[in-house]
Amino acid sequence: MYKVGVLQFEPKLFQVDQNLNYLRKMLEDIEADLVVLPELATSGYVFNSLDEVKSLAEDAKTGKTAQLFTQLSQELDCSFVVGFAENDQGKLYNSSSLFNPNGEIFTYRKTHLFFEEKLFFTPGDSGLNVYPAKGGVKVGMMICFDWQFPESARTLALRGAQIIAHPSNLVLPWCQKAMTIRSLENRVFSITSNRTGTEINGDKELYFTGMSQILNTKGEVLTSLTKTEEGINFVRINPSDALSKQVTEHNNAFTDRRPDMYQT
Amino acid sequence: MYKVGVLQFEPKLFQVDQNLNYLRKMLEDIEADLVVLPELATSGYVFNSLDEVKSLAEDAKTGKTAQLFTQLSQELDCSFVVGFAENDQGKLYNSSSLFNPNGEIFTYRKTHLFFEEKLFFTPGDSGLNVYPAKGGVKVGMMICFDWQFPESARTLALRGAQIIAHPSNLVLPWCQKAMTIRSLENRVFSITSNRTGTEINGDKELYFTGMSQILNTKGEVLTSLTKTEEGINFVRINPSDALSKQVTEHNNAFTDRRPDMYQT
Repeated sequence: MYKVGVLQFEPKLFQVDQNLNYLRKMLEDIEADLVVLPELATSGYVFNSLDEVKSLAEDAKTGKTAQLFTQLSQELDCSFVVGFAENDQGKLYNSSSLFNPNGEIFTYRKTHLFFEEKLFFTPGDSGLNVYPAKGGVKVGMMICFDWQFPESARTLALRGAQIIAHPSNLVLPWCQKAMTIRSLENRVFSITSNRTGTEINGDKELYFTGMSQILNTKGEVLTSLTKTEEGINFVRINPSDALSKQVTEHNNAFTDRRPDMYQT
Repeated sequence: MYKVGVLQFEPKLFQVDQNLNYLRKMLEDIEADLVVLPELATSGYVFNSLDEVKSLAEDAKTGKTAQLFTQLSQELDCSFVVGFAENDQGKLYNSSSLFNPNGEIFTYRKTHLFFEEKLFFTPGDSGLNVYPAKGGVKVGMMICFDWQFPESARTLALRGAQIIAHPSNLVLPWCQKAMTIRSLENRVFSITSNRTGTEINGDKELYFTGMSQILNTKGEVLTSLTKTEEGINFVRINPSDALSKQVTEHNNAFTDRRPDMYQT
């Protein structure tokens, strides 16, 4: 069995060091194989300017977030997926990285930007790829609003994802339910880590919906958090469940597909 | 406004004439613009042999189902979508037709066959197309298990469907919830007409889940029937709601798509 966790908390806007210290404390002493954290977990979300994002966006390999989670991954023998603001030679991305105990870092850049993210971030160019986490379990990353587009999870699943790691900062009401269908239609596990709290910056104020969840390959909720609590929920799963796409004796969610009939 | 209806009933296996008479009575005196009926509404569903299907499969233009609904459509000035077993020169399809008051008949052949349907029917070759119903409202048809594949509704929506007409004979528990996400992710109305009752043929027995529903472009249930009742529920909708794919001021469910990133 493979022990996976979903972490929910309230990041503090602009307080990268404080957020990293807080996460270090939440994660000390955990035993798990893979833990997923929210989108922009170390920076906060409600930005008012490009300069604000630039002031804290990090290098994916050498930034403070990468440093801490490279270290934690090795210390705890656990893979982590963490959302952060990425700066790659002046281009800013809403990214997440998969950190492995062996020091590997794989980075995903959000494909479908939400709302005013479009003012600050470059649309992701990494593609929707699948990477090996601890134990070789195949993990695909997508971030928050990517849920709206069934093609995101579909692409990850077709490329072999057994678990979809889904860092989020959700403000719309539909995602948690939609993810049950994303898991079901693709027969994959999914871990949606959402943040909590209300974030204010100048005139802007956003309320985040919590309710982080881990779903099995039938879209059933294995564990979920409340709208407001902070914490880490764990469940033990068998990732190989996601290798079978069989729906009935006569039906398979993948081989029954008829791509020649689909418009893309 | 456009008055749409969803009809739910229990077809009787092999009793085409009886089913047609029953439907004629259910539909007499209705006033509506479009009404959707279940999959295989005139034949029943639980077949044991190819010969059983052949004994009642009909020509799409001249069969008994086509005759009745061509007549009803003209008499009632209402478009109908009706599921039936089609025989086209010896090839059998699980089909549905859109009947218009002006005599037009458009036929869809189920793309993704479910379970033992694969033993009796040929996989649909019509494609997932969009047709004008009464008043020029654009209707796309998909049948029952097509729901499992997000590409079905996506294709219809990308081709301009304002309403997805979805004749069904549902036995799995997930479709009604999945359709809320199909409507939401594509910003289209959907009308899922499911049958009720338990059908037995030899050793086979299937229970159908009812709960037919009409959803708006946010996936909200406008009306639904119970698991067992027979009847027709009507709602008035504004089909032009489906012309806007705007999700937020900055987001559009269609133009935000990035097909170059998707695997098909």
